[in-house]
Amino acid sequence: MEQRISIVTLGVADVGRARTFYERLGWRGQESEETVFFQLGSVALILWARHKLAEDGSFEDRGADGFGGVALAQNVRDRADVDKVMADAADAGAEITQMPRETFYGGYAGYFRDPDGHVWEIAWNPSFTLGPDGSIVLPDFGPS
Amino acid sequence: MEQRISIVTLGVADVGRARTFYERLGWRGQESEETVFFQLGSVALILWARHKLAEDGSFEDRGADGFGGVALAQNVRDRADVDKVMADAADAGAEITQMPRETFYGGYAGYFRDPDGHVWEIAWNPSFTLGPDGSIVLPDFGPS
Repeated sequence: MEQRISIVTLGVADVGRARTFYERLGWRGQESEETVFFQLGSVALILWARHKLAEDGSFEDRGADGFGGVALAQNVRDRADVDKVMADAADAGAEITQMPRETFYGGYAGYFRDPDGHVWEIAWNPSFTLGPDGSIVLPDFGPS
Repeated sequence: MEQRISIVTLGVADVGRARTFYERLGWRGQESEETVFFQLGSVALILWARHKLAEDGSFEDRGADGFGGVALAQNVRDRADVDKVMADAADAGAEITQMPRETFYGGYAGYFRDPDGHVWEIAWNPSFTLGPDGSIVLPDFGPS
């Protein structure tokens, strides 16, 4: 398996509601067959009915409302951008679970949940390089 | 909020077990402070203790074992690669939830779950272009 990822699919209760949320954040997507596709640099994010996703993959969906063990993150270029994006997310209807605060690694970050409970962290991490196109470059952590 | 993603963090029960699984799939990561970092092209995938992630984001973790509403995907270059990656995943200890099969969009795909239940789809989709570096380019779906 190559060391890469192509798509993150978020299973949602209402595709229209979810699309509206991300478009209020400034994103632009395309819809086809009740599925919304966002190009995010070299990967894609898809909104699809959660029950269709579970059915497609043949896994049981207990429909638990809450943290499913996955968090997405957007790293931003400076500390002030964290406050700005978190405020924009709140305006768009996100639930702020953690207001921006200093992090243990010397950065600054907050968390919100989208209307379906999917978790996003907005982080400024001075150790992680962001390229002009937003690509992230991990540092060399040294011998492990 | 810019239209991009930096990091996917998978909350796991045992960081060592999770790292072993992904390294058996051929990935190479770096570990720092009980956290494993994989560079995946222009984004990163992180393995971190699930309880630490929930605590960091101040959201309740009901600890539901099962589908949390998110699926990750790797698109591959040809149909035969789907069978190969799925077989490698099974060898590495993945639970195959859906054997590869024809998809409604004219492709071929299967699903597995990693040792913590995180869902991966391995897909061949002739409508989605893959660049030489594995970057995915969505088609123009036309007016929506």
